[in-house]
Amino acid sequence: MGTVTSPKQDRSRATRRRLMEAAIECLAEHGWAGSTVAVVAERAGVSRGAAQHHFPTREDLFTAAVEHVAEERLRKLRAIADATSMTMGPARRYAVVETMVGLYTGPLFRAALQLWVAASHDDGRLRERVTALEARVGRETHRMAVTLLRADEGRPGARETVQGFLDMARGLGLAGLLTDDSARRERVVEQWVEILEGVLGR
Amino acid sequence: MGTVTSPKQDRSRATRRRLMEAAIECLAEHGWAGSTVAVVAERAGVSRGAAQHHFPTREDLFTAAVEHVAEERLRKLRAIADATSMTMGPARRYAVVETMVGLYTGPLFRAALQLWVAASHDDGRLRERVTALEARVGRETHRMAVTLLRADEGRPGARETVQGFLDMARGLGLAGLLTDDSARRERVVEQWVEILEGVLGR
Repeated sequence: MGTVTSPKQDRSRATRRRLMEAAIECLAEHGWAGSTVAVVAERAGVSRGAAQHHFPTREDLFTAAVEHVAEERLRKLRAIADATSMTMGPARRYAVVETMVGLYTGPLFRAALQLWVAASHDDGRLRERVTALEARVGRETHRMAVTLLRADEGRPGARETVQGFLDMARGLGLAGLLTDDSARRERVVEQWVEILEGVLGR
Repeated sequence: MGTVTSPKQDRSRATRRRLMEAAIECLAEHGWAGSTVAVVAERAGVSRGAAQHHFPTREDLFTAAVEHVAEERLRKLRAIADATSMTMGPARRYAVVETMVGLYTGPLFRAALQLWVAASHDDGRLRERVTALEARVGRETHRMAVTLLRADEGRPGARETVQGFLDMARGLGLAGLLTDDSARRERVVEQWVEILEGVLGR
């Protein structure tokens, strides 16, 4: 399938992707203050002019990067969901909960967190862009959680439980920011599988 | 009650408190990069020399400020708990859940978040100090939640459910960083009261 592209378009797309990946690494490691277009361009091995051709402003580069990586993660999740068995046993629910919690740990969450925090004390374009981005990604993640957990949103409390689960996952991401929280996280995840079974049904 | 203090000690204590309160406001509004000892001293109406007498380093000032405000919030919570009725009905559990979620919204959470994020890309003293601070405050908050929710930690899943609840509260704080999330938050809190009743018993 796939559309036919010229070698020039391929190169351009590869450059764009390299810049976005470098932007995420850079944000996660150095925070917003240490992440300029110049630093990212150097890390990606791209000239500053080329970087600015793809992303005219710093806000363009970093919001596009977070959105791109978030979409990629959600796409992979969807593929896993499509490939796995259709029966919703405890093993599958555990796998779904663990995988979704995994969205909120690692470099993507760290990078997004830097962007949220920088946006929270910004009055201009960054705040506006990040707010819109967060709304889009949040909606998409919620939809994905409802599908993967087979939650019937008509059931009382189901919608709020899925939301609370995603809030919890976000909080777990924050708890793992400074120290390795994985042992505690695993126990919380196990308990959440029980809670979700109780509210959403088996 | 209270110990007898000299007017000079009182003044010193008041200065210290003013500096810590200004530090929280400053962190919440401007983030770590914009929060220097000089900026805080000016905001508090204190000379830079006096500020440095109380807090020799920037890390001292900001970690002391977050710890001071967190302790103050926990002390207030304890007082509320002591004052309220001893019966654990749904109304009381709702009040406890709502109040604890309130710890993770507002200026204290915003300030602490700035500090966590700054510490996450620091390799030195700030990271060390903030990690130790987070461990202390986290333990204290967990203990408080167990007491206020009357959770029996011997009951299977009780401990992890209380932890998951605090992770969820932290995630709600993050969700409210850029937009007013209070309507959604209220519904999630209501659902959590149900979940806690299910796991912890009435």
